[in-house]
Amino acid sequence: MKRVTIVCESLAREPVTRLLQEVGAHGWTLLEVQGSGRQGLRLAEIPEFSNIQVDVIIPPAVTETLLQRLHADFFPKFAMIAYETDIRVLRPNKF
Amino acid sequence: MKRVTIVCESLAREPVTRLLQEVGAHGWTLLEVQGSGRQGLRLAEIPEFSNIQVDVIIPPAVTETLLQRLHADFFPKFAMIAYETDIRVLRPNKF
Amino acid sequence: MKRVTIVCESLAREPVTRLLQEVGAHGWTLLEVQGSGRQGLRLAEIPEFSNIQVDVIIPPAVTETLLQRLHADFFPKFAMIAYETDIRVLRPNKF
Repeated sequence: MKRVTIVCESLAREPVTRLLQEVGAHGWTLLEVQGSGRQGLRLAEIPEFSNIQVDVIIPPAVTETLLQRLHADFFPKFAMIAYETDIRVLRPNKF
Repeated sequence: MKRVTIVCESLAREPVTRLLQEVGAHGWTLLEVQGSGRQGLRLAEIPEFSNIQVDVIIPPAVTETLLQRLHADFFPKFAMIAYETDIRVLRPNKF
Repeated sequence: MKRVTIVCESLAREPVTRLLQEVGAHGWTLLEVQGSGRQGLRLAEIPEFSNIQVDVIIPPAVTETLLQRLHADFFPKFAMIAYETDIRVLRPNKF
């Protein structure tokens, strides 16, 4: 399985979680983080600046769909990074 | 080393951290996250719904013990997911 | 690419983010976490105890520089752990 992590401006919260539902993700977690991005040290200049981080666990096939949608529809509009990590999910039925 | 991430309802906080001590984990971090899980979009319905995420770094052997205990004693009782990631820990004595 | 995660006492916040700039990191996220570390169950004893977690995405070469600096200048001074994870970053220009 893959964990895809999306860090973006809070403004993108609703569109991102809607996209996760559309691609078939069953669950995700969301938290607020402080961020400093490529556009410069926004955090230092505006201390209350906050981003959100969304982590979603999905199969590789769904990852591809998600990434293509992020690339086509989100990267042009929002300050955003996304990356994937290989994980091993512990499921009761695997034991 | 492995990083095991447990995302669960806040109710499980005390039992989970007690389990981590029992299996011999030396430290962990805990943070509150908003979650949307397999039972449906709980977050959307109850905006204040919150989960906790616990990250613990342990050797592979401890991971197996931890996962068996989670499977046997926690998965039946709590809304919970757990997954592991391979990591490389930077220790002073490794340099 | 690598994701380096640094969990440390809040006191180290300014020196750590300054170090990230010095080694050439283009962005990072920072969040407050509760921690229990090797020095004992600090969280249980002092419930309001808080650490920070900083995640930074950097190329392998920068990782080595960062780790050497952390080892030489930070590990002796601050309660801190650091670990790296292999990730795949999604960049618009990769599609």
